Amino acid sequence: MSALPAPARLALNSATTKRWSAAEAIEGCARAGIPGIGLWRDQVAASGLERTADLIWTTGVKVSSLCRGGFFTAADERGRRAAIEDNLRAVEEAAQLGTDVLILVCGGLPPGSRDLAGARRMVADGIAQVAPYAEQQGVRLAIEPLHPMFCADRSVVCTLGQALDLAEEVDGVLDGPIDGAGRAAGDLAVGVAVDTYHVWWDPQLHEQIARAGRRILAFQVGDWTVPLPADALLGRGHVGDGHIDVREIADSVAKAGYTGYTEVEIFSQRVWDTPGDETLHTLIERYEEYLAS
Amino acid sequence: MSALPAPARLALNSATTKRWSAAEAIEGCARAGIPGIGLWRDQVAASGLERTADLIWTTGVKVSSLCRGGFFTAADERGRRAAIEDNLRAVEEAAQLGTDVLILVCGGLPPGSRDLAGARRMVADGIAQVAPYAEQQGVRLAIEPLHPMFCADRSVVCTLGQALDLAEEVDGVLDGPIDGAGRAAGDLAVGVAVDTYHVWWDPQLHEQIARAGRRILAFQVGDWTVPLPADALLGRGHVGDGHIDVREIADSVAKAGYTGYTEVEIFSQRVWDTPGDETLHTLIERYEEYLAS
Repeated sequence: MSALPAPARLALNSATTKRWSAAEAIEGCARAGIPGIGLWRDQVAASGLERTADLIWTTGVKVSSLCRGGFFTAADERGRRAAIEDNLRAVEEAAQLGTDVLILVCGGLPPGSRDLAGARRMVADGIAQVAPYAEQQGVRLAIEPLHPMFCADRSVVCTLGQALDLAEEVDGVLDGPIDGAGRAAGDLAVGVAVDTYHVWWDPQLHEQIARAGRRILAFQVGDWTVPLPADALLGRGHVGDGHIDVREIADSVAKAGYTGYTEVEIFSQRVWDTPGDETLHTLIERYEEYLAS
Repeated sequence: MSALPAPARLALNSATTKRWSAAEAIEGCARAGIPGIGLWRDQVAASGLERTADLIWTTGVKVSSLCRGGFFTAADERGRRAAIEDNLRAVEEAAQLGTDVLILVCGGLPPGSRDLAGARRMVADGIAQVAPYAEQQGVRLAIEPLHPMFCADRSVVCTLGQALDLAEEVDGVLDGPIDGAGRAAGDLAVGVAVDTYHVWWDPQLHEQIARAGRRILAFQVGDWTVPLPADALLGRGHVGDGHIDVREIADSVAKAGYTGYTEVEIFSQRVWDTPGDETLHTLIERYEEYLAS
């Protein structure tokens, strides 16, 4: 279907082709020549973990990230322990799929709660408990700040600056002394995921991207379209459909030292209702139009 | 209807009783014993400016703020000039209604634009052009940061920190040298409006409220309920209905030195469909339950 050669840094995030299983999405990327894929755990489970890992091996498509760990906030200790356990499994799945990036969507307020500071402490505690095992498995944790409109129900981590504060709290400051020893970027256990849809509005965005530097473990793109639909989750558009200057943010991210994939992640009923191969073709076209050098 | 005495610092923002004209809202406050009212210009126009000002005089209800000036962003010079003109009229209306606070909702991106930095410059320019006339009329401009989900279409001013940066840019830093002379809090021409609904998620909220100090010219309250409805504008609830610890924010605002009204502003179809007197009764009840000392 696509006559264009796919860009070398382009990745599909499999949430964009939600009706596909992981196996179908990997095969779709292989057909389209898209070299990377960010996978969601539910889609991996639908295809089977072993089979998905095999398919990654045979197609040569690389897994840019696994979505998602996190959701550390819970009303009681039992719930918080279950979340930690689930994150340890996610770390193992990431390792098995050959990616060193596990994206964390950290969780909103527990039902009925108004204790935002308390929920944020649960998140910091949760990441600190998962990080040592992740490091041991060679998987890095990418804290993803979500748009503040998801603060109540999906992520109390709302800004890139806050995500970096958390990463530094758990992982130590880069090049700073940790147990008396310096720490190089290659040793990073905890970093951040930057998604244009979630961070584009932030007046501190470019300064925080510069601060993030090598802590940027994943870069996701999607556009902001208005009006927002109900629940606000599915209001995204292809790059170029909306109000975000995606190129400007991509340039900042590159300038900060990020050299990894650009993952296209779009939650949109309209996109989901489009045949997957057609969506992948649009990804390549839009990348060429808005993001290729 | 209300057996409770209304708290001395409570104000209705007339958007909460959207089906009422300004005159009806003022009369409703007088009946309920609510001492303050934040008025919207469209409702004032519906009742007539003169008649509204007379009613304020005769009922003794005080105008806590006028909503709203702003919307400085426009695709062309003509549009931006028209916005300035409209803001000068809003300043005059505020003065005539006996309030010294004009709330600014600064405007989103012009249609089709992705130039966020450019839109933010338009806002700074617009406020700078309105401020001298406002100062002359004894009206202070309260920059209201809106929730970042409104960045594209209603306000490129998204955080309290950003609003304060803007206020300081236009108005000079408090106690700092302006033209060689110090500047006291009483001389403030530009400040901010803090609305719990818009700022509650901000990890820097309490430090920015402390920084704001006497620049807080208005304090509005409303609660965050989930799920968000389409367009996200009408998803608010009465204090206590949702996820915001309104009391904690009110305490911060008081600690920063704010002594003015607490205006209840709720955009909600459910609240709008409720008879106004009943809504005012709920305002008083919730204030007593969640905000009274």
